[in-house]
Amino acid sequence: MSAAARVTVWNEFRHEKRSGHKPAEVYPQGLHVPIADYLRQQGLAVRTATLDEPEHGLTEAVLEQTDVLTWWGHMAHGEVADAVVDRVQARVLAGMGLIVLHSGHFSKIFKRLMGTSCDLKWREAGEKERIWVVEPGHPIAEGLGEYIEIPHAEMYGERFDIPAPDTLVFMSWFEGGEVFRSGCCYQRGRGRIFYFRPGHETYPIYYQPEVLRVIYNAVRWAAPQEIKATAFGNAKTPLEPIRSAAE
Amino acid sequence: MSAAARVTVWNEFRHEKRSGHKPAEVYPQGLHVPIADYLRQQGLAVRTATLDEPEHGLTEAVLEQTDVLTWWGHMAHGEVADAVVDRVQARVLAGMGLIVLHSGHFSKIFKRLMGTSCDLKWREAGEKERIWVVEPGHPIAEGLGEYIEIPHAEMYGERFDIPAPDTLVFMSWFEGGEVFRSGCCYQRGRGRIFYFRPGHETYPIYYQPEVLRVIYNAVRWAAPQEIKATAFGNAKTPLEPIRSAAE
Amino acid sequence: MSAAARVTVWNEFRHEKRSGHKPAEVYPQGLHVPIADYLRQQGLAVRTATLDEPEHGLTEAVLEQTDVLTWWGHMAHGEVADAVVDRVQARVLAGMGLIVLHSGHFSKIFKRLMGTSCDLKWREAGEKERIWVVEPGHPIAEGLGEYIEIPHAEMYGERFDIPAPDTLVFMSWFEGGEVFRSGCCYQRGRGRIFYFRPGHETYPIYYQPEVLRVIYNAVRWAAPQEIKATAFGNAKTPLEPIRSAAE
Amino acid sequence: MSAAARVTVWNEFRHEKRSGHKPAEVYPQGLHVPIADYLRQQGLAVRTATLDEPEHGLTEAVLEQTDVLTWWGHMAHGEVADAVVDRVQARVLAGMGLIVLHSGHFSKIFKRLMGTSCDLKWREAGEKERIWVVEPGHPIAEGLGEYIEIPHAEMYGERFDIPAPDTLVFMSWFEGGEVFRSGCCYQRGRGRIFYFRPGHETYPIYYQPEVLRVIYNAVRWAAPQEIKATAFGNAKTPLEPIRSAAE
Repeated sequence: MSAAARVTVWNEFRHEKRSGHKPAEVYPQGLHVPIADYLRQQGLAVRTATLDEPEHGLTEAVLEQTDVLTWWGHMAHGEVADAVVDRVQARVLAGMGLIVLHSGHFSKIFKRLMGTSCDLKWREAGEKERIWVVEPGHPIAEGLGEYIEIPHAEMYGERFDIPAPDTLVFMSWFEGGEVFRSGCCYQRGRGRIFYFRPGHETYPIYYQPEVLRVIYNAVRWAAPQEIKATAFGNAKTPLEPIRSAAE
Repeated sequence: MSAAARVTVWNEFRHEKRSGHKPAEVYPQGLHVPIADYLRQQGLAVRTATLDEPEHGLTEAVLEQTDVLTWWGHMAHGEVADAVVDRVQARVLAGMGLIVLHSGHFSKIFKRLMGTSCDLKWREAGEKERIWVVEPGHPIAEGLGEYIEIPHAEMYGERFDIPAPDTLVFMSWFEGGEVFRSGCCYQRGRGRIFYFRPGHETYPIYYQPEVLRVIYNAVRWAAPQEIKATAFGNAKTPLEPIRSAAE
Repeated sequence: MSAAARVTVWNEFRHEKRSGHKPAEVYPQGLHVPIADYLRQQGLAVRTATLDEPEHGLTEAVLEQTDVLTWWGHMAHGEVADAVVDRVQARVLAGMGLIVLHSGHFSKIFKRLMGTSCDLKWREAGEKERIWVVEPGHPIAEGLGEYIEIPHAEMYGERFDIPAPDTLVFMSWFEGGEVFRSGCCYQRGRGRIFYFRPGHETYPIYYQPEVLRVIYNAVRWAAPQEIKATAFGNAKTPLEPIRSAAE
Repeated sequence: MSAAARVTVWNEFRHEKRSGHKPAEVYPQGLHVPIADYLRQQGLAVRTATLDEPEHGLTEAVLEQTDVLTWWGHMAHGEVADAVVDRVQARVLAGMGLIVLHSGHFSKIFKRLMGTSCDLKWREAGEKERIWVVEPGHPIAEGLGEYIEIPHAEMYGERFDIPAPDTLVFMSWFEGGEVFRSGCCYQRGRGRIFYFRPGHETYPIYYQPEVLRVIYNAVRWAAPQEIKATAFGNAKTPLEPIRSAAE
């Protein structure tokens, strides 16, 4: 990763604006803020963007200056403009990293890139989650112990309808009896994608140091050497002489 | 695979209708016909469907009676209705097998299920292709020798912009100097997908016994035990007692 | 799979011979017997073999008549002769299926084929295990519901030091707080390998119908079309003319 | 990767000592020398080790100071002591990177870690090889164009009897008509392994800048954050209360 990795932390930022509700208490400035703050403290160049900004804050200009995009959305997936989804997808295929968080599993961009329903089981009971490290040698697990404990979490359970990840880094245990593939790496085009399960608008999970550490590790893992289009199309002149065509 | 596996062979069927051109000579009744004939000879229940039929011949009723769908398209990908693509995608996620042939790499349904551009290099020079078996123990390679030779083929070359296949069964060598991942297996939802490179409207490739054998093997591999929706959603009642929530 | 798939059920068969101990009570004839009985009832041709037979019952002649071998061992892994391990490995690479059960994770043959330590966490506390189906469309999950419950099991927990499986079919939840990759598919050479976690000499797990069903499904999945050596070595005569060598 | 990544370049170093033969002309000081020189120029801490040194130059002390080991061997694989192979394997499983070059496919350590025969087709005809980049976004492909051309090479062809790689970065085209998976990534234990095909004792391939660049990229990719043993064994005290055992 280049020292200058530029991150855009995207948040739907709707739950947190409804005063008097839990999300506004837990994340008064939006849940993107603790994430962005942490990444800045690690020395990354960070900006934030949210749904209600023009073009959701994801203009061509912003994406051109983004090496890794993190994505959190939940109640308003449908309001994300298809043109912006197209733009983000094209940028990922050219090399931009994408970190999809928690309920972002149902975002247009994640479903677009996965090709599946991305559906799952869920339960809001504030139960305990234990996220086990399955691949301790993977860069995204750097600095962690054997597991991360989340004291109170929304449950996500299998079957999680995703393509089998290229690498499965984490698996979750839930108090209520389910399991989940909670850290999933994908290569799509020239870009790297990481889905990370924890985080919910009503729990202070994005203040938890190990969770922030994973997001930081994932950003570093997903940061491209270079973002550029791949050459496709008509390769008219063969590299080697073709004799068969004459037959 | 159930003995009663039902196959629908789908063809765009446009090239072959233009009289006086090469495709009409090589495949006078459409290139779906030799494929369908071969599969019938192997004892499968086969129907065909084409773009210009109502709903492209892929009504709800037809899909409900289809265990495996094969897909060939080229010049009219854009004319396939999105509603039909939605329907086919849903059916694949529920378990239907999908065999995508040659220029079908750019079909809406394949791009939808892959999440990438599915772009590639190509050249029409009638050159020789040699398709090597990389996984000789895979069911799709059953009955083949070490390779299949295609005397004259359109070249497809890497970079092929697909997700890395779950299993890579074949790799192609081209006379003009390129290579290609030409037999790619994917699991998406409950369904199995196989991309198979050979076949072009101007070459008699779909009369070649080894090519037909691979398509038959792929149909058998992709045929589901059962097609059904997976249970997702709110798992309100936990399987185990939750104590943490009380805190 | 050919209708005539021939299975050899191998068991170390030591625990069960020590009278007065739990395994002798639970599996008086050896834990291979309920497995072999079940597979026979499904119409497979089944023989059994055990450690204390000459060549552990795995002579060249027996292996030549075996399409799929199932393996259970625990206290005497070290007594399995290296020559027999070599023989089994060669047969797997030529196409024989191998189903490794529970404590077989530490057998010489599994470690040989995986190339890693195959070590794990464990605990004997008779706790509950819930085995979740992660890939409901996989043939090994045929006929199952969303999960299998094992009332009392020895715990195996991550980190399980195996190569990431080609396909992960099952994941276990344990009452004591751990998770485990409990159904793992591998292709090695022309052969298919399935590791399946459940089963312990002191619990009646190999009488449980869903567990037996999975073993049967795995045998069917792993049964080869054909067992034969792959051609390697000096390909002296090139398939295409070589001009570069003349330089 | 830590700035201080320490590399040991291992070479069998037998061919090059036989005066009057081609290898002695092409690599008078041994083929490890141009590799080590290049890596040093990139700022890495490099030592070399060869077969005829005590313990093949791979003592416990040397391995403890090695983050990534590169391996080339050919005519004397059988002379590598099993105790050294055990040691290298253990170090890889604890996190050391391993880059296996060309004929190293048949080394004891590679076969040990793969679990398969690692056999292949080959031909010495000095033919042209073109190594295509299949995953242009992968760190090992950094700085390369679409392909690398090797003017004269020994051919290696499929079937290459390896486990399917976690990531396939390169595929080779050979003038004589074969293809090969020539850049293969594996995670084994905490360690990363890369097999890279090019290089032969009679061709000056290890002076070619793109080939050296790939080896350097691979070293960086394989360098661990940390080398340490994983915790396995009896997890006697459960993390959660177990009620089922009481039954």
